Amino acid sequence: MRPTIARFPGSRIREVSDAGFGIEGVIPLWFGESDRSTPAFICEAATRAMTQGHTFYTPNRGIPELRQTIAQYVSGLRGRPIGADRVSVTASGVSAIMLVMEALVDPGSSVALVGPIWPNCADSVTALGGEVRRVPLEPTPQGWRLDLDRLFDACDDTTRAIFVNSPGNPTGWLMKEEEVRAILAFCRKRRIWAIGDEVYDRLVYDRPVAPSFLDLAGPDDPVIAINSFSKAWCMTGWRLGWLVAPPAFGEVIGKINEFNVSSATTFVQHAGITAIRDGERFVAEIVAQYARARDLVVQRLGAMPRVRLVRPEAAFYAFFTVDGMSDSLAFAKQLIAETKVGLAPGIAFGQEGEGWLRLCFATSLARLGEAMDRLEPALS
Amino acid sequence: MRPTIARFPGSRIREVSDAGFGIEGVIPLWFGESDRSTPAFICEAATRAMTQGHTFYTPNRGIPELRQTIAQYVSGLRGRPIGADRVSVTASGVSAIMLVMEALVDPGSSVALVGPIWPNCADSVTALGGEVRRVPLEPTPQGWRLDLDRLFDACDDTTRAIFVNSPGNPTGWLMKEEEVRAILAFCRKRRIWAIGDEVYDRLVYDRPVAPSFLDLAGPDDPVIAINSFSKAWCMTGWRLGWLVAPPAFGEVIGKINEFNVSSATTFVQHAGITAIRDGERFVAEIVAQYARARDLVVQRLGAMPRVRLVRPEAAFYAFFTVDGMSDSLAFAKQLIAETKVGLAPGIAFGQEGEGWLRLCFATSLARLGEAMDRLEPALS
Repeated sequence: MRPTIARFPGSRIREVSDAGFGIEGVIPLWFGESDRSTPAFICEAATRAMTQGHTFYTPNRGIPELRQTIAQYVSGLRGRPIGADRVSVTASGVSAIMLVMEALVDPGSSVALVGPIWPNCADSVTALGGEVRRVPLEPTPQGWRLDLDRLFDACDDTTRAIFVNSPGNPTGWLMKEEEVRAILAFCRKRRIWAIGDEVYDRLVYDRPVAPSFLDLAGPDDPVIAINSFSKAWCMTGWRLGWLVAPPAFGEVIGKINEFNVSSATTFVQHAGITAIRDGERFVAEIVAQYARARDLVVQRLGAMPRVRLVRPEAAFYAFFTVDGMSDSLAFAKQLIAETKVGLAPGIAFGQEGEGWLRLCFATSLARLGEAMDRLEPALS
Repeated sequence: MRPTIARFPGSRIREVSDAGFGIEGVIPLWFGESDRSTPAFICEAATRAMTQGHTFYTPNRGIPELRQTIAQYVSGLRGRPIGADRVSVTASGVSAIMLVMEALVDPGSSVALVGPIWPNCADSVTALGGEVRRVPLEPTPQGWRLDLDRLFDACDDTTRAIFVNSPGNPTGWLMKEEEVRAILAFCRKRRIWAIGDEVYDRLVYDRPVAPSFLDLAGPDDPVIAINSFSKAWCMTGWRLGWLVAPPAFGEVIGKINEFNVSSATTFVQHAGITAIRDGERFVAEIVAQYARARDLVVQRLGAMPRVRLVRPEAAFYAFFTVDGMSDSLAFAKQLIAETKVGLAPGIAFGQEGEGWLRLCFATSLARLGEAMDRLEPALS
């Protein structure tokens, strides 16, 4: 086995959830997943597609109707025409990331990445022999702050891309329009890729959609925008995502996908069409729910004496430090034993996440309230 | 972009099918896929699982009940106990191959591979910077012949694995028990992996199942057996496969899958349980159908003066040469224009496949008969 692979640590989130396995009455807020199952109208679309015999292979970049539907959807969100030739359907957002990294990364190359960030982005680069250069966000009383100079200084001749996950997991950080503009200008000048992982782009609370490189990019700009049906439509288990990239790059993604997964599941692709076409009311509903959940969590956690919280601008996570805690993994395990509330340790999101905990608030208010009641004694 | 990736040729099969796009009345025998959609009882199981709310993330190696079901199924086929700790569920057979290659292959390493073979096995190695060493099967009047000495001579200190696809696509070749034994002994001695791509293991016509490394391997032998629901249960579009490997290797596959696809689609995994538990009658039915189709194709093609055919022992392909044909891609394009029958060019399966054509006979006898009628003038 390759030494790089043999050395891979397991998921630190999984390590906590394993520690909670078998404990009755746990409130699990560790994974990045709503507690709502997929809405019925999307399930019914999948069933309909199966019944109609949509169980055969599809093109590597997805069925044309879904690519067209995504193109129209993204065009509408971004206020710019985005053609279906820029869209590639993938078997999840993470699959899109992996395909992109396979196209760009080999030993001797590097990717600059804004952290803390969910681990898979960095792991795909490392697995392919590339170097990850982490640039940490800074927590301030006004929110997370990105040091653009530091990000650009991390790039050199080996750098193939700047990778940004905004809205950010685990931080809830939102990249500002002027940061989008500056990173895109830098990438154009340096002829490297600007990659945006935008799977939380609809889960924002003060505007309809998060800023994106796509707001500014033309079809042949070095921009790759990665997205997923998992979060906005509660479809985590479906493994359906997409990316928007220059048409020629998309052609390559299709070729690479052939020997990775070949395509997303056929009738799942059909259900994706329905999710986008008929899902806006559902998206609005969960955004409203998460907004209330965010208020509750920020208010309750913020009032606990040992907690320091950066108010999340987007996504569905509260990310916070606890006074006196230095080992987030041990602390999260202790919390599960003492309070039966499952949180993710900050170290799971990179060294710069150590000392923090992540709580997913995509859960009913009643359940969140109960979790707060349980956490209060431990965090006061 | 990485030069290796930029240089990747597109699928030569796709090149022919693209040439046939828009031509009315084509009989498409180019892809490795039955013309039957997935049986209703499997679709209904997927619907049931969705209705029950099985739409959330699953463990990276699949849901325990499916792993257990596969373990029992393979134990039964192989007459040896195979524990669920050896089974990892993947989002297709090809995804299993890619995950395995990511664990084993990096620049400077090599994989020995028996060809002609479907292109993805070699492409995954090349994409990861590894070297592919192709050892061609030899066509003889008695069938395909594997030169074991040549295979073993292709291995040196850089070699991480011997990769065998048996029953073979495109050849229909079946690895003999003594070859299985010899390759396993060689791999044990050299401490390299014996990888079997066994997705056609049920599509054999003179016995219940094809020989496998699993017939002889203990849990910690260097054996990886890759399989899929695509062929035996007509589930190509579902993206569901599995691999059997030593438990410690399976743990690593789970970690790697996290940043590749994370898992197969959740309710598809549930449907997989039903496919195995209730699918034996269906498998027997399609094997009987394909056996008749094989007889028809061998008899009709074999009688055409320009055709030289090696009788396929297994799988659902006829692989044959045409007297006077040297460019299989050009010839297949010409055939589609002249006869409206879509075949795959042998060059798609490696240089050693040049001069050959592949015909998939997983189609109704009536349609196959019509295809033969159309091909006859061109191949006589």
